[in-house]
Amino acid sequence: MSTTALPDWQTRPQPRTAEEWTLRAAEVASVLATDAAARDRAGATPYAEVRLLKDSGLVTLLGPVEHGGAGENWVTAYRVVREVSKADGSIGQLLGYHYLWNWAARLVGTREQWEHVEAEAARNRWFFGGAVNPRDTDVVVTEDGDELVFTGRKTFSTGGKVSDVTVLEGVFEGTDRHVFTIVPSDTPGLTFHDDWDNIGQRLTESGGVTLDGVRTPWSSAAGYVDGEFTPRVYNTLNVPTIQLVFVSFYLGIAGGALETAATYTREKSRSWLHGGYDRAVDEPYVIDTYGDLTSKLWAVEALADAVAAEGRRLHDDPDAVTEQARGEFEVRVAAVKARATDVALEISSRIFEVTGARATTTAEGLDRFWRNVRTHTLHDPVAYKRREVGRWVLEGTLPEPTWYS
Amino acid sequence: MSTTALPDWQTRPQPRTAEEWTLRAAEVASVLATDAAARDRAGATPYAEVRLLKDSGLVTLLGPVEHGGAGENWVTAYRVVREVSKADGSIGQLLGYHYLWNWAARLVGTREQWEHVEAEAARNRWFFGGAVNPRDTDVVVTEDGDELVFTGRKTFSTGGKVSDVTVLEGVFEGTDRHVFTIVPSDTPGLTFHDDWDNIGQRLTESGGVTLDGVRTPWSSAAGYVDGEFTPRVYNTLNVPTIQLVFVSFYLGIAGGALETAATYTREKSRSWLHGGYDRAVDEPYVIDTYGDLTSKLWAVEALADAVAAEGRRLHDDPDAVTEQARGEFEVRVAAVKARATDVALEISSRIFEVTGARATTTAEGLDRFWRNVRTHTLHDPVAYKRREVGRWVLEGTLPEPTWYS
Amino acid sequence: MSTTALPDWQTRPQPRTAEEWTLRAAEVASVLATDAAARDRAGATPYAEVRLLKDSGLVTLLGPVEHGGAGENWVTAYRVVREVSKADGSIGQLLGYHYLWNWAARLVGTREQWEHVEAEAARNRWFFGGAVNPRDTDVVVTEDGDELVFTGRKTFSTGGKVSDVTVLEGVFEGTDRHVFTIVPSDTPGLTFHDDWDNIGQRLTESGGVTLDGVRTPWSSAAGYVDGEFTPRVYNTLNVPTIQLVFVSFYLGIAGGALETAATYTREKSRSWLHGGYDRAVDEPYVIDTYGDLTSKLWAVEALADAVAAEGRRLHDDPDAVTEQARGEFEVRVAAVKARATDVALEISSRIFEVTGARATTTAEGLDRFWRNVRTHTLHDPVAYKRREVGRWVLEGTLPEPTWYS
Amino acid sequence: MSTTALPDWQTRPQPRTAEEWTLRAAEVASVLATDAAARDRAGATPYAEVRLLKDSGLVTLLGPVEHGGAGENWVTAYRVVREVSKADGSIGQLLGYHYLWNWAARLVGTREQWEHVEAEAARNRWFFGGAVNPRDTDVVVTEDGDELVFTGRKTFSTGGKVSDVTVLEGVFEGTDRHVFTIVPSDTPGLTFHDDWDNIGQRLTESGGVTLDGVRTPWSSAAGYVDGEFTPRVYNTLNVPTIQLVFVSFYLGIAGGALETAATYTREKSRSWLHGGYDRAVDEPYVIDTYGDLTSKLWAVEALADAVAAEGRRLHDDPDAVTEQARGEFEVRVAAVKARATDVALEISSRIFEVTGARATTTAEGLDRFWRNVRTHTLHDPVAYKRREVGRWVLEGTLPEPTWYS
Repeated sequence: MSTTALPDWQTRPQPRTAEEWTLRAAEVASVLATDAAARDRAGATPYAEVRLLKDSGLVTLLGPVEHGGAGENWVTAYRVVREVSKADGSIGQLLGYHYLWNWAARLVGTREQWEHVEAEAARNRWFFGGAVNPRDTDVVVTEDGDELVFTGRKTFSTGGKVSDVTVLEGVFEGTDRHVFTIVPSDTPGLTFHDDWDNIGQRLTESGGVTLDGVRTPWSSAAGYVDGEFTPRVYNTLNVPTIQLVFVSFYLGIAGGALETAATYTREKSRSWLHGGYDRAVDEPYVIDTYGDLTSKLWAVEALADAVAAEGRRLHDDPDAVTEQARGEFEVRVAAVKARATDVALEISSRIFEVTGARATTTAEGLDRFWRNVRTHTLHDPVAYKRREVGRWVLEGTLPEPTWYS
Repeated sequence: MSTTALPDWQTRPQPRTAEEWTLRAAEVASVLATDAAARDRAGATPYAEVRLLKDSGLVTLLGPVEHGGAGENWVTAYRVVREVSKADGSIGQLLGYHYLWNWAARLVGTREQWEHVEAEAARNRWFFGGAVNPRDTDVVVTEDGDELVFTGRKTFSTGGKVSDVTVLEGVFEGTDRHVFTIVPSDTPGLTFHDDWDNIGQRLTESGGVTLDGVRTPWSSAAGYVDGEFTPRVYNTLNVPTIQLVFVSFYLGIAGGALETAATYTREKSRSWLHGGYDRAVDEPYVIDTYGDLTSKLWAVEALADAVAAEGRRLHDDPDAVTEQARGEFEVRVAAVKARATDVALEISSRIFEVTGARATTTAEGLDRFWRNVRTHTLHDPVAYKRREVGRWVLEGTLPEPTWYS
Repeated sequence: MSTTALPDWQTRPQPRTAEEWTLRAAEVASVLATDAAARDRAGATPYAEVRLLKDSGLVTLLGPVEHGGAGENWVTAYRVVREVSKADGSIGQLLGYHYLWNWAARLVGTREQWEHVEAEAARNRWFFGGAVNPRDTDVVVTEDGDELVFTGRKTFSTGGKVSDVTVLEGVFEGTDRHVFTIVPSDTPGLTFHDDWDNIGQRLTESGGVTLDGVRTPWSSAAGYVDGEFTPRVYNTLNVPTIQLVFVSFYLGIAGGALETAATYTREKSRSWLHGGYDRAVDEPYVIDTYGDLTSKLWAVEALADAVAAEGRRLHDDPDAVTEQARGEFEVRVAAVKARATDVALEISSRIFEVTGARATTTAEGLDRFWRNVRTHTLHDPVAYKRREVGRWVLEGTLPEPTWYS
Repeated sequence: MSTTALPDWQTRPQPRTAEEWTLRAAEVASVLATDAAARDRAGATPYAEVRLLKDSGLVTLLGPVEHGGAGENWVTAYRVVREVSKADGSIGQLLGYHYLWNWAARLVGTREQWEHVEAEAARNRWFFGGAVNPRDTDVVVTEDGDELVFTGRKTFSTGGKVSDVTVLEGVFEGTDRHVFTIVPSDTPGLTFHDDWDNIGQRLTESGGVTLDGVRTPWSSAAGYVDGEFTPRVYNTLNVPTIQLVFVSFYLGIAGGALETAATYTREKSRSWLHGGYDRAVDEPYVIDTYGDLTSKLWAVEALADAVAAEGRRLHDDPDAVTEQARGEFEVRVAAVKARATDVALEISSRIFEVTGARATTTAEGLDRFWRNVRTHTLHDPVAYKRREVGRWVLEGTLPEPTWYS
């Protein structure tokens, strides 16, 4: 990331509308794009990029206005994640996860807790990570006076050492009661292993983490009142909310792939020597492919926007969220997840057909889009998303709320 | 159409919102659905069905409130066409074309003309047809005093004998100046040939028409002032506006196919005898297919809604429509046309896989969805829609306004 | 079918090689093609067409040379069915089913039985039908002295009144022992209901049949020796053998669709008026679509040929057929069935994109290809074919022999 | 490559049939597979791997028996390339290109020349590379007495420093007459730049090469007699012959991807925790996906086999090759190239859906299949292959022989 190219956000007024925030995100993306391929290749820890997210104001997008946040809603957040991901899917994922972990206080915590967390987070521009992977059940929580002690290991923890605070999740010893809390990422006993070495989303700091007696006050146990957790239907929005984050960066990566490819085709691709066209942009198959891929992307973007708006109505009135409303929202999210997966894979693979053989150099790095999409779309099997939709269509069955549905 | 099943619209208040009109359209659809397969097979002229559209208030949906219309906009109109088409694609097409021909006064005519036409149309509940097929150039217009005389033949004319008024289009003799007008469908010299015998959209009365000296006052020549036509950019919205009508009934047909199939699967399909499932609705491939097809449909529906909303902003301020805005709208329309074509074809063909062998009886008539989509999606080659999108993505090229772009 | 166009097969030497038989089949197809669309529309009982199959020698293709048959093998038979189906999928199906029912004697019967059946069939040019639908279990067989008496009903019976003999299948009363036999189609008690009215394969005479005490000698019970049935692994080849028949007419229909469409495009389609090409055959999207569809068809044809050759090795040495060999053959057949289904559906639907709007007239009848494919590909769910292949790939599991696998 | 795992080919009899050679290739593949992912990651120059190809006898597969070759034909060669590519697409490409360059003597040279080259190549187990990229025209050839002098640069040269001999191609100065010759790869003036750094086929040593006055006797100019080149139609088989090499390694890579994935699914994948299945191999979507992908692969493999057999008939009688026969062969090759491209891309991307999130580690290296296919399938635009087929279907147009068709 070229620091010389940084916009002068300090001296300019903060964005005021969703559209302005989207433009701000696009500015951030244009900075990230300058060396996205090189950073991906290097696997460089994104310290500077997280700072960029803070300086641009994106980190506090959802934060309360009175504490310095932008007071925006999830519809805007998804747009911002999509925009950032056009340049760098890893940074988009980091930002999107951050939004979710920050918002998790509101989803799970008591009013007192989440007001406190959101105020602190906005004032201090906390960047959130999370050591929460519910398929692992090996973090055990014990009580020690008015403290909770977390011990165990998580295989994946997005954010890791570039985060300021980390959401922890564990199970009270000998029970199946889960508990969430937030701790400073440099808290004693918390060790990030820096061992994420996968083919895509390489800069997300998603490696394993060890919790070696990590202590946190009982009062920080999200949603617990007098040692009892009081669930709301609203709690179960965590899954559709984060799955729409996924959708946002899949679509952002796909859009970035298409834009990057179009620029390449326009500026670098040669027309085929036996095709009868002077310019690559005049080749019928090139035009047709861009038309096809763009149309496909637009359709899924429109669905993502529509579903985000549906979700907003739920977030706006948390205590009114019924199981029916939650279930129908989850079904819609499942559908857009399925479509975003397909279209992002198709676009990120097919762009090569319209850029050509020379676009396969490692330096050009056009494969990162496919690698990024391919990696994260496996988070949970998309076949089960189609299943959620199919069951609902056939019999009106609502998905049972789990960590993945 | 079972007349005994007709709702008591006379005695109930008229819908007041877009949502209520959509529900009204769904009511109409439920009446149409009762014998849609049988009417399609019989090729029955839809007199009763057009009366249903009138009685339900749908025909005057876009008409001015002061003259008895509902005063709704195109966003609602597209929704209504989609809804009606779930039950009967032919009737959906007739209704959508009616909206366009009615609206054409506003697109092409002078203020005085369109205010007059819309008032009359609403007051008299005119159902519009159109003998306008610009690929044919064989209707010649001559002047005779203060009358225009139309002579020639059009291969296709949707609406035909079920319409009250017909939009005519011709070329002034020896020129390439087109002229539009509206005449009563029973006007002397206008003969509908009733020769539409195609594999789909069989009830649209889309046969040929002969104009044998059809007379109409000069003053009804749309948009002509003192014998001169004054084009506006807004005129050129006719193409994207009608193409979104097409999209609406493609999506409606697809949605109807999916709903009809789901009902069949639920109520009639048998599980496979070697599959290990008791009910067809429990078969993984059945669930997966419904999930997949529904997700695909939802994505294109969402894009159609988004583009309709974009169009509404143009219709709301006709004189502000710039070539750039018109062109970008057309590109978006082209994209959704391409997607709607693909998804409607896929759904209407694949529903059989999840209904099973016995669903192929002629009596069941499930093939009508595919035949309907297959027929109309050839109106103009979808490849050229992708081309419009591709050129815009690659070089920002706006589609040149023609009768098809 | 224009009888004036009939080739003078009587006066010409009989074909001697597989290639010559394929050419003969192509000749038959060219006769059938002259009015295939019209016959399909009329639902005309194919008496003349079956006579054509006899006169051309195709009916006795598999029959023993010493009794007037051509002595060809299944590889040729599949080719012939494919060729005939290019013109008329119904006739192709009738012919293919005929081959199977004729061959069934060899699959199931004792040597004495099948030698007798094949001799008689070849000498008399029997055309075989079959009232065998194992999902129905309502034909009961009782003994009466040295006769068997069949009583009950089958929902589907391909061939029906155009057949000379019919294969019957039933279950010995109170047991689950199936028995097959062959009776003259005009045998007392056998009534064809002529009630096949489905969207495709309309001329296959596939309606229901009632067996009202149909009598046949015990000695004709295929494969029974002293009242006991002696199964061989070879018996279980009936399913892959007939499924390759299906594949053959799916591919034939697809090939016919493509050829018919190409002729239409060449001779009748107009280039798009805003496309910039004088001839439809020069439009890039048209060329691309034909290239794509043809390539897809060729691939599946090649697989069908390869699998037919694999099958031939099994048929050549019936008693050497092991469960492993049978299972691997069935898996290969399942694969080609899955591919043939997909490609035939795709081709028969997409040909319209390259013929254009005017190709949708009922008179042109181009939809019959899709209707034919769509109807028969539901014979048994193709999802279970993919399952057979998938299980074999993953764990080497052989499909359990059933009536469908 | 673990040298300890090397088979004891020295002490075993050489394969004698095509089947035995395919098994030999599979043995080679099993050695290559042991560290294919690691070698790909390291970008290791494949000295040892080329030695393996020599020791196993594969390098001299097409060589004359009397000089130590196996005397096999292209059908076998394609099979061998496919087999080797299952483990390592780069090595498969190297081997396939080697076959073509070795064979080029026979395609282009005089009988005396090719008999000499093939004898020497077989006796010395030459491994061929080629600095032939006809889109570059910047290698100029001048005469100097009875020597030719090559000067210039080629952007791509497969084989490079792992080859023993290199085929050079250039243009006589001031003319458009091309000339081919073969030189030792360590010939003075020939410099391999080792600058191939692309996302796939990373071990093919396909970097640039500089020819700085490379000298070769006039008599080695392939096909030149007394300074004149005598073209045959057979010469133009170079393109379909090498394009079938491409097809072979695309299909090999795809097959390898599928086998590798199936092993992973069987041995490592976990069933989905909310799916209701104990084992990943029992998940319906997993089974369905393997069934679908395998069926698709088999179809294209069968077409590749069929087309290879068609090619063999041409190679068997070079002087009988007509333009018609050549053209029809090229069309068939174009079709299988188009299909192989599609299916290999689909398989190599979709395997992840059935292996799961943990299969995305860099160490597992499953992305190499997609990267390999994606890179080489851009060699020349596949859209033009479909165009060749489409034009032939529509109007019987034969592709004009060029370097790519």
